[in-house]
Amino acid sequence: MKPFFTLEAVDPETGARAGRLHTDHGEVLTPVFMPVGTQAAVKTLTAEQLEALDAQIILANTYHLYLRPGAARVEAAGGVHGLAAWRRALLSDSGGYQFYSLRELSTVSEEGVGFRSHLDGSKHFLSPEAVIDIEAALGADIVMPLDECLPYPSEPAAAAAAAARTARWARRCRDQRGPVFRHHAHRQFLFGIVQGASYEVLRRESVAAIAELDLPGYAIGGLAVGEPKSQLLDLTGLCTSLLPADRPRYLMGVGFPEDLLRCVALGVDMFDCVMPTRNARKGTLFTRAGRLVVKNAAYAGDAAPPDPGCLCPCCRRYSRAYLRHLIQAGEPTGMTLATLHNLYFYLDLMRAARSAILDGRYGAWLRAFFTDYAMATD
Amino acid sequence: MKPFFTLEAVDPETGARAGRLHTDHGEVLTPVFMPVGTQAAVKTLTAEQLEALDAQIILANTYHLYLRPGAARVEAAGGVHGLAAWRRALLSDSGGYQFYSLRELSTVSEEGVGFRSHLDGSKHFLSPEAVIDIEAALGADIVMPLDECLPYPSEPAAAAAAAARTARWARRCRDQRGPVFRHHAHRQFLFGIVQGASYEVLRRESVAAIAELDLPGYAIGGLAVGEPKSQLLDLTGLCTSLLPADRPRYLMGVGFPEDLLRCVALGVDMFDCVMPTRNARKGTLFTRAGRLVVKNAAYAGDAAPPDPGCLCPCCRRYSRAYLRHLIQAGEPTGMTLATLHNLYFYLDLMRAARSAILDGRYGAWLRAFFTDYAMATD
Repeated sequence: MKPFFTLEAVDPETGARAGRLHTDHGEVLTPVFMPVGTQAAVKTLTAEQLEALDAQIILANTYHLYLRPGAARVEAAGGVHGLAAWRRALLSDSGGYQFYSLRELSTVSEEGVGFRSHLDGSKHFLSPEAVIDIEAALGADIVMPLDECLPYPSEPAAAAAAAARTARWARRCRDQRGPVFRHHAHRQFLFGIVQGASYEVLRRESVAAIAELDLPGYAIGGLAVGEPKSQLLDLTGLCTSLLPADRPRYLMGVGFPEDLLRCVALGVDMFDCVMPTRNARKGTLFTRAGRLVVKNAAYAGDAAPPDPGCLCPCCRRYSRAYLRHLIQAGEPTGMTLATLHNLYFYLDLMRAARSAILDGRYGAWLRAFFTDYAMATD
Repeated sequence: MKPFFTLEAVDPETGARAGRLHTDHGEVLTPVFMPVGTQAAVKTLTAEQLEALDAQIILANTYHLYLRPGAARVEAAGGVHGLAAWRRALLSDSGGYQFYSLRELSTVSEEGVGFRSHLDGSKHFLSPEAVIDIEAALGADIVMPLDECLPYPSEPAAAAAAAARTARWARRCRDQRGPVFRHHAHRQFLFGIVQGASYEVLRRESVAAIAELDLPGYAIGGLAVGEPKSQLLDLTGLCTSLLPADRPRYLMGVGFPEDLLRCVALGVDMFDCVMPTRNARKGTLFTRAGRLVVKNAAYAGDAAPPDPGCLCPCCRRYSRAYLRHLIQAGEPTGMTLATLHNLYFYLDLMRAARSAILDGRYGAWLRAFFTDYAMATD
């Protein structure tokens, strides 16, 4: 059988990688950005629109789908693929991040996480094993184990305990159904998640403990939670230097376009973030010149497309003036058009990065990108 | 030059008509349903999606666009066609209906309408002539004159005064730029609007006064404001029997699918209504079996498409269970999919009606439709 991951090229100057994930719902060319479809839909878009953008993999969230419509409903519909009529690859987040962001509603113990639903206040308890069973029902091609993510900053002792627990939970998740399992008609691949907060020594220990589980891929979690940008980059680089080269690396929840490109140079293969979709709905577009707050009055008479020269479905047809009007007027169509642009921008950035890596010129390509691009401040 | 309207067939049994409107933004095959794009967008859809549904004409609203983004902005963008990158036909409603539905904010006098903006409370005054100038700036292919619409029920004296004023305003609108004018690079056709509330005698007088203006088309206004369904049908039939056969007839703001089909049988050619789009966003779908409240819990496990056999972009791919989940979860994608279905249903109903009329079998087709269709109660 074909291995799950093929490493195709490593850029000689930077160490950036190009590869392929082989899932039973198609190949995913890396580096890749994965649009976030929390509730089994990428907000404002249809599956046809995601296909037209050539999104090869999207995310769904275990916590949200467990609460609504419920794992049994999703399972009966044929998993998220069946429910949402999504035919390409899918990754399910475990809910670990939701227990962090909704931590006033949850209590972590060695057994698992007790929490109240943010929807109706109902009480629930999920063990690492139960999370894997739910994710088996959801049927994503890539499955994340339950982890414990801490806020920034965290005390060393708390960070060490959470990282060690994350490793024990990862082993329990693996032991529940194995590193690769089949609940619907296709294979599901379990990843491990590295934690360790902002501490190098904990990150080293976490990589060692997680890598020992010999999983199909590894994620770097617990970053982009408020730490300085330099620390995000340093810790990401540390983790990728320690993780096995023959497995894909997924940096969770990052981030701005410039962050993705720098982390690609550090050897990251996979990314997800709500940034392009959430910003789109508020009227902020990512362009090759930097961020464009298209809802600003300055664009009310601007006939140019949001990003001149961009080939996305939004820029090929519509003007800044129209987007500004729609966002200003609260028209849902404005959110859709801005989401189409932002996701195209992220996806195309990864396609261009991959092409540069395959040509062995990622460093030069990256420097050229930063010549035009006005970065967000940290 | 080709006439604006070609009457192609009249059904021998019912009097239903098939025809074509020849605009400089393409032909419109009648009978036709016109999706409502109040603020220069059909809510939740892109222009590409409307084109895929084969919508040949959409509506925009003068009152809303005058307030936001403003007539000068729209004019500078090349009219609504330029602003919204809409290449097909367009009709602009005059705002008369908004002055009716927001009547606590407006004061009607012979000179025109004074009103406060529903957005910021600012004071405005629009004469019939000013409305035409704004509509010239908006650039719709079909232009509605300022009219006075009354609530149901209305006293005979008030209804007579409003109908007479509507006729005087229609003349002032025609005299401002003529029945056909050109402000952008294409022709704009002015319609007249028949009023007269629920009084037959007033409707007769109104038709006579408006038809005398020799306009490219005529609308029936002031209905679907709360009167009994039988009255809607009787008054519509009265108006169409009196209006000239060689001009298109547009019944404003109607309605349920069954209303459209009965009014087609009465000789109406054009319809608009927010019903399919507004209901979609709330999770109610129109199907060949009647209305489907897809947000109901009964559909949470239903793998069937909303309307089995329907060829719309929603029914070809997605299930009732998915739509129910999306609407329940407040996902914008659910509103988009439901809107795609409902508009397809309305547009396709008119296409099927047209085909039956051209074949001289509209009566039989209509009876077959009602065999399957569970009607809404009045």
